[in-house]
Amino acid sequence: MHINELDTPSVLIDLDRMEANIARMQKRCDDLGLAFRPHIKTHKIPDIAKMQVEVGAKGIACQKVSEARVFAEAGFDDIQIPNSIVGQQKTARLMELAMYTKITVAADHPNTIAWLDDAAQESGAGVRVLVDIATALQRTGTQVAEVVTLAQRIEAAEGLHFAGIMAYPSDLTERENVQEALAALDSAGIGVDVVSGGGTGAALVAHEFPELTELRVGTYIFNDWPTVEKGWATWDDVAMTVMATVISRPTTDRTILDSGSKTLSSDVWKGQYGYIVEYPGARIYQLNEEHAFVDMSECEERPVLGERVTIVPVHTCVVTNLHNQLFGVRNDEVEVTWPVAARGMVW
Amino acid sequence: MHINELDTPSVLIDLDRMEANIARMQKRCDDLGLAFRPHIKTHKIPDIAKMQVEVGAKGIACQKVSEARVFAEAGFDDIQIPNSIVGQQKTARLMELAMYTKITVAADHPNTIAWLDDAAQESGAGVRVLVDIATALQRTGTQVAEVVTLAQRIEAAEGLHFAGIMAYPSDLTERENVQEALAALDSAGIGVDVVSGGGTGAALVAHEFPELTELRVGTYIFNDWPTVEKGWATWDDVAMTVMATVISRPTTDRTILDSGSKTLSSDVWKGQYGYIVEYPGARIYQLNEEHAFVDMSECEERPVLGERVTIVPVHTCVVTNLHNQLFGVRNDEVEVTWPVAARGMVW
Repeated sequence: MHINELDTPSVLIDLDRMEANIARMQKRCDDLGLAFRPHIKTHKIPDIAKMQVEVGAKGIACQKVSEARVFAEAGFDDIQIPNSIVGQQKTARLMELAMYTKITVAADHPNTIAWLDDAAQESGAGVRVLVDIATALQRTGTQVAEVVTLAQRIEAAEGLHFAGIMAYPSDLTERENVQEALAALDSAGIGVDVVSGGGTGAALVAHEFPELTELRVGTYIFNDWPTVEKGWATWDDVAMTVMATVISRPTTDRTILDSGSKTLSSDVWKGQYGYIVEYPGARIYQLNEEHAFVDMSECEERPVLGERVTIVPVHTCVVTNLHNQLFGVRNDEVEVTWPVAARGMVW
Repeated sequence: MHINELDTPSVLIDLDRMEANIARMQKRCDDLGLAFRPHIKTHKIPDIAKMQVEVGAKGIACQKVSEARVFAEAGFDDIQIPNSIVGQQKTARLMELAMYTKITVAADHPNTIAWLDDAAQESGAGVRVLVDIATALQRTGTQVAEVVTLAQRIEAAEGLHFAGIMAYPSDLTERENVQEALAALDSAGIGVDVVSGGGTGAALVAHEFPELTELRVGTYIFNDWPTVEKGWATWDDVAMTVMATVISRPTTDRTILDSGSKTLSSDVWKGQYGYIVEYPGARIYQLNEEHAFVDMSECEERPVLGERVTIVPVHTCVVTNLHNQLFGVRNDEVEVTWPVAARGMVW
């Protein structure tokens, strides 16, 4: 089927580009001797993760237990959730997966570790735990001074295994912290299996961060407008685009597309919600759920009513999460339609 | 099941409040002699729309053809899509619905009308068309000077029926335009069946806009933080909340919740992504996909790790679209679990 036979808005994946992105990142990790663990948050599709594993990925990363379940049921047997799993329902469901899958999670607090151990002992399953180290992102993570204490708690817990440490993102600014943590663990006589880093930008400087043993990267597979603008990818590496239709031309300067926040998400980049390939001067300055508002005043050419345009999204991962299917395309022909199996998995 | 047995993040609907909201808006419209047409974008659940129809709604509004299909298949027989339906796949699918459902759409351009008519004639079905009038929202819509021409085009089209005019939102600032349009249509000898207004805020001033014959309102059923702050509802009218868990307490002032942009959406209100009921001074200042970053520095009390909190979202409609189910709750017991049947319907 030609892409013009698809309804709009539709999310298209350029298969040549995706395959090149998969191969390039795997080679980068192979060359550095790093274990590569693609983060599936970006595509949420087991068939794509299989392609990543086939070229050499050692396992996958998921961000939620329910997301991991979809992939465990699809046969993936080494799954990391680089997140603090807190709450009785979550830890119980985590242990259900750990009964038949190698599971690694993160923790940044003694209580998180204690609750994981409670669930592990109750179920008879066990999980590996990474200590999550605080980074400049200022999200989760413990201070380096606490790493040894947390590692000891994990080691002492009957149902848990201390796997190592993680940082997100593993930018070079974090290297000193990681070195300090490793030195402290070494002094305490605690062996470290994994030093897990992550982030599409961080992957590009991983050769300057030799302490890392593993990389978790997601966005690289599709890329988006910010990854290009940040210099992490070129336009030719952008594998995901949204095909949209002009449904109204109410004024000379204003164009309305059928791709609103239900399609592109409200994630914003420099005040805009996507980059229109055919009209580089156009500005998507506002979204309603089903409408994109586009300012064409800086464009010499203007689209006509009914015309289709190609949008590079602001954030590829959240776009995937909004759609029931992605269309894999080569030479404008739809080669594969993937249901987004782990879409909406927030638990 | 008690709500504490649910995993988090979960979207809870307070049934008492929802039922009161449904009854109150219906009574307002009944008192004004207005036909009420709830917009289902807010809940996307046929069973809830049935409750709205049972108390007197004359039909429903959907924003997309694929959304309308879900409701047509659930038995709704009077569906309006107050949107321009542009594109061959869309008009063809629209006519499939029109074969067995009374369908009304909007148009703001002669080509949109011509393409609708092509599809109508090809299928043998017919649809009713409202002329969409531009408003201060500056989204779609024609200028008043064009209304008669468009109405004549619709009347002349074999497969279409001119139904009247619509405005979104139908704030009082739009009344003069609507009066002008009606006068022009009257002068041209064109009968107007429907004058359709919309918007939760506009509904509250509909008594000052006597030209309206019909109201389309969505958000009123659940409400959200902005509807309260704008004075359109009270806190006691907020029927949708998100139950989330504290998964990290990395610093005294920072709390991390398990409800990120995949749960709350990135829709923002005054720089914040939701209002935490238990901690009114807290600020959700940033979201990642699975994490909410909360600044507690203005709070006297701080939540502990593992604690559950209640978030009033910034935009109820987009939250619904992110979740596979909503939980209907009374006295903290889950009374009903609704699959979000029309979630992700972007076509």
